[in-house]
Amino acid sequence: MSKQSLESIRVFALGGVGEVGKNMYVVETDEDIFMIDAGLMFPEDDMLGVDVVIPDISYIVQNKDRFRAIVLTHGHEDHIGALPYILRKVNVPVYGTKLTLGLVEDHLKEKGLRKKSDLRLIHERSRIKVGQIPLSFFRVNHSIPDAVGICVHTPQGIIVHTGDFKFDQTPVDGKFTDMNTLTNVGKKGVLCLLSDSTNAERPGTSPSETSTGEGIKEVFQEATGRIVVTTFASNVHRIQQVIDAARKQNRKIAVVGHSMKKVIDIARGIGYLEYPDELFVDTDKVNDLDNDKVTILCTGSQGEPMSALTRMAKGAHRQVTIESGDTVIIAANPIPGNEKSVSRIIDFLYQIGAEVVYGDKHVHASGHGCQEELMLMLNILKPQYFIPVHGEYRMQHAHGELGEKAGVDPNNIFLIDKGERVEFTNGKAKQAGKVPSGNVLIDGLGVGDVGNIVLRDRRLLSEDGILVVVVTLDKKNGGIRSGPDIISRGFVYVRESEELLEEANNKVSATLEKCMSENVNEWSSLKSSIRDVLSRYLYEKTRRRPMILPIIMEV
Amino acid sequence: MSKQSLESIRVFALGGVGEVGKNMYVVETDEDIFMIDAGLMFPEDDMLGVDVVIPDISYIVQNKDRFRAIVLTHGHEDHIGALPYILRKVNVPVYGTKLTLGLVEDHLKEKGLRKKSDLRLIHERSRIKVGQIPLSFFRVNHSIPDAVGICVHTPQGIIVHTGDFKFDQTPVDGKFTDMNTLTNVGKKGVLCLLSDSTNAERPGTSPSETSTGEGIKEVFQEATGRIVVTTFASNVHRIQQVIDAARKQNRKIAVVGHSMKKVIDIARGIGYLEYPDELFVDTDKVNDLDNDKVTILCTGSQGEPMSALTRMAKGAHRQVTIESGDTVIIAANPIPGNEKSVSRIIDFLYQIGAEVVYGDKHVHASGHGCQEELMLMLNILKPQYFIPVHGEYRMQHAHGELGEKAGVDPNNIFLIDKGERVEFTNGKAKQAGKVPSGNVLIDGLGVGDVGNIVLRDRRLLSEDGILVVVVTLDKKNGGIRSGPDIISRGFVYVRESEELLEEANNKVSATLEKCMSENVNEWSSLKSSIRDVLSRYLYEKTRRRPMILPIIMEV
Repeated sequence: MSKQSLESIRVFALGGVGEVGKNMYVVETDEDIFMIDAGLMFPEDDMLGVDVVIPDISYIVQNKDRFRAIVLTHGHEDHIGALPYILRKVNVPVYGTKLTLGLVEDHLKEKGLRKKSDLRLIHERSRIKVGQIPLSFFRVNHSIPDAVGICVHTPQGIIVHTGDFKFDQTPVDGKFTDMNTLTNVGKKGVLCLLSDSTNAERPGTSPSETSTGEGIKEVFQEATGRIVVTTFASNVHRIQQVIDAARKQNRKIAVVGHSMKKVIDIARGIGYLEYPDELFVDTDKVNDLDNDKVTILCTGSQGEPMSALTRMAKGAHRQVTIESGDTVIIAANPIPGNEKSVSRIIDFLYQIGAEVVYGDKHVHASGHGCQEELMLMLNILKPQYFIPVHGEYRMQHAHGELGEKAGVDPNNIFLIDKGERVEFTNGKAKQAGKVPSGNVLIDGLGVGDVGNIVLRDRRLLSEDGILVVVVTLDKKNGGIRSGPDIISRGFVYVRESEELLEEANNKVSATLEKCMSENVNEWSSLKSSIRDVLSRYLYEKTRRRPMILPIIMEV
Repeated sequence: MSKQSLESIRVFALGGVGEVGKNMYVVETDEDIFMIDAGLMFPEDDMLGVDVVIPDISYIVQNKDRFRAIVLTHGHEDHIGALPYILRKVNVPVYGTKLTLGLVEDHLKEKGLRKKSDLRLIHERSRIKVGQIPLSFFRVNHSIPDAVGICVHTPQGIIVHTGDFKFDQTPVDGKFTDMNTLTNVGKKGVLCLLSDSTNAERPGTSPSETSTGEGIKEVFQEATGRIVVTTFASNVHRIQQVIDAARKQNRKIAVVGHSMKKVIDIARGIGYLEYPDELFVDTDKVNDLDNDKVTILCTGSQGEPMSALTRMAKGAHRQVTIESGDTVIIAANPIPGNEKSVSRIIDFLYQIGAEVVYGDKHVHASGHGCQEELMLMLNILKPQYFIPVHGEYRMQHAHGELGEKAGVDPNNIFLIDKGERVEFTNGKAKQAGKVPSGNVLIDGLGVGDVGNIVLRDRRLLSEDGILVVVVTLDKKNGGIRSGPDIISRGFVYVRESEELLEEANNKVSATLEKCMSENVNEWSSLKSSIRDVLSRYLYEKTRRRPMILPIIMEV
């Protein structure tokens, strides 16, 4: 037996399992480590004040002598968004397809990292080597062009990572998920499959992207006023279909939204969007055109407060305000967690008098395969081991059940959490320990400095506000020179609660005098006593628990 | 023409339009005012720290000499939950059906208001007079028994309020929405209809409650371990079906969750739930029974952190912990806004190893009619005027479109917001002005004292925390005696940000010295200067905007 086949191969996720977002998968041998995808995630509701969340890559940094490359499956934020932060710590070559690298380049330029980075173009037929490990690729269908899956050719067998995929039978650009390559790989034999679990709970098949084009065309045929279309900036095929519908109705298109403009520029620059120059107009020309000649293509499909759509709806956009008679197409579904903000913008648009097209009007289709498509992938590849990824636990679980249905031995199905390693030795796999993993919170410019304590404090503050109690003591005799003064924020409306705050003040004074008389003048004891008496009193009177911050000064 | 028919009748909503929750509808003449329903709403995401929200009834209080009664359609929280707060301000008779009053009584007892209140029992055949205004009722089908709609017999014609309803063709208790009364009312002629818009965007018909019983029975037939069922405490029919399924499988039932226990007691006490005494066991007996003899019926279907289901899942319940081998049926859908917390509890249950049944497994059905049922109501009653209620704006809008389809003149359809009055004179209606309306936020014991300022502060605090800057000045010469001291909470992790806070401190010192030297010692100017220099510095360094609270003491 060759030395190589005795080598162990470890596979784990630093993000993207037990969650939808911040995908980061790692393949590791004793000599080489490489990463598949480097995504970010938007914060959960309880991560107050946090901008984005990225995976904790301590393990990679600790082993950077073996870390060879980052390989990207496609250009969505949850697959490339963490790159600038990662590359600042471990600068390795980044492999990606044309559109993917186009979007990556743009991110890196914004953060001033383009010059230092080593971006290497691959395509679906490429064969590369990462350290000692050969990789090949295959085209997949997704809601962004240039998406690929990855084959890792190890001595023990092929490990396949699907990337995000569906099997669209009428793809907009005519490019199908590459069944030929996949069936050949399946014939060779697949050691392990890592596959996209996002829609594993949904039966049937994901509607074709082309069907959304038909839905959109119908709206364009009917509408007599202006048409506003909002969708995900990265959905180039959807944008192409909007372009086609607008051309058919002789409408011009104005683009509102920084990210939308960027994607359109990048995509057109590499030939992924097709349109005549004169189709697009500047936003400030919109008001000069007849209503039935106007299309506005914008971001804001999730109802984000500062987004283009919301600003145009609320009259906060300098050039365009949505009005009665406009038709607004929301060509996107709410990402889980965003349901309320999407409902809110729909309500608002109706109240202005706009016509709103959304939901089951066939103007959106998911880019992730549903159960039939996931079964198809499993049946084509017939993997010996199966690791469902890219999903929350119940999605991984549902995908695992599909794996069983497809004939994978239930003992060979691993529902892993972040950091949990699956180790292959001699073609056999088992779960083997855990590497450090977790969330790194990014708030403003700070990376990772907002941790549990800061979040916990923000939560407390958000619930019942804060009471600051300031006392100035005499350095020599320890007596009170000034105060206690109580200032509150976010607790009660002060003008209506004078009595309450006065009484609270009296309680603190009394407690301080008691401490003085008992010769308790150690600051921590004083602060504890203040905190105790106040929290008890306030809870009794209000059933609220504001944060209490005693501050002692000395003169 | 009689004096009465010259009288104007005004109809408006103080809650329940432009939102799902806190239903409160008002009918008013020059002599009398009465209220239909008095509900509460759970806070929106941005109402930080708020417990519940109720309608602002200033208008009712201002006109309490004319205020005669509150009439309840059914016992859901969003129709009765505000009663204790309302009755404290305006104590009038409350009319309701048996189960409705049973639940109301319980609420009032908890708040010590039972003795003072005047609860009057009605049933579907009752005819009452509220002031000069005759009311009659009709039975409707909903997800709680004893639900009725109301007919208001005015000199100008009948105003019908449907309450919450569906047309279930196989109702669990055999009680149908009363088509006979409705068709007779329709024949007489309906001046105006106020109807339930909750599911107005959903095509087709709402599944029958009985179908959920079949779904539940199937799970009971298959499961070999313990079964945990969570549903809304008020869904008495669902509980009856769980009881029936458990009996069939010779399983005992333990109830976990205070509100669930209460509803079961009240409902059984009036004959709305049927079961043999020995079916229910105390929770502390659960662990003595064989697994296949156990059913646990509990609250927590929305994934609320302190609810029974979550506590049992996380090992925080004294007697019951959910384990691998248990089957958990989530017989409820996430209320909009709760999607993430429901997903989270499902994930968690899967991770423990429980089997989870939810979603499209036919274990839940909405209590609100979908489009076909709403059309049926419109076609039966053929109202001259139509006011869609009980929904967010887009639901009212969609319901309005159904009204048009059913032949109501589009000019006679009013999509009202809270406080907007529809006035009927001589059988003709028009929108006529607005009465005061709004949200009253309840936080702990405080009713209405948490307003915009307090919420705004809580929001700021939740984003980037707070920095408190304390300085002690000398009373005589205005110089600095102590400080500046900077204490932060929820902003940065102090141990890692010493440099930042030190530099911030220096900036504040420098600013103060500058102010001193320029003889600026007015406190408000000093505070402004501190705030300015700090916010600029911190934003530059961190891109964060913590609240800055300068405090000046004097000795």
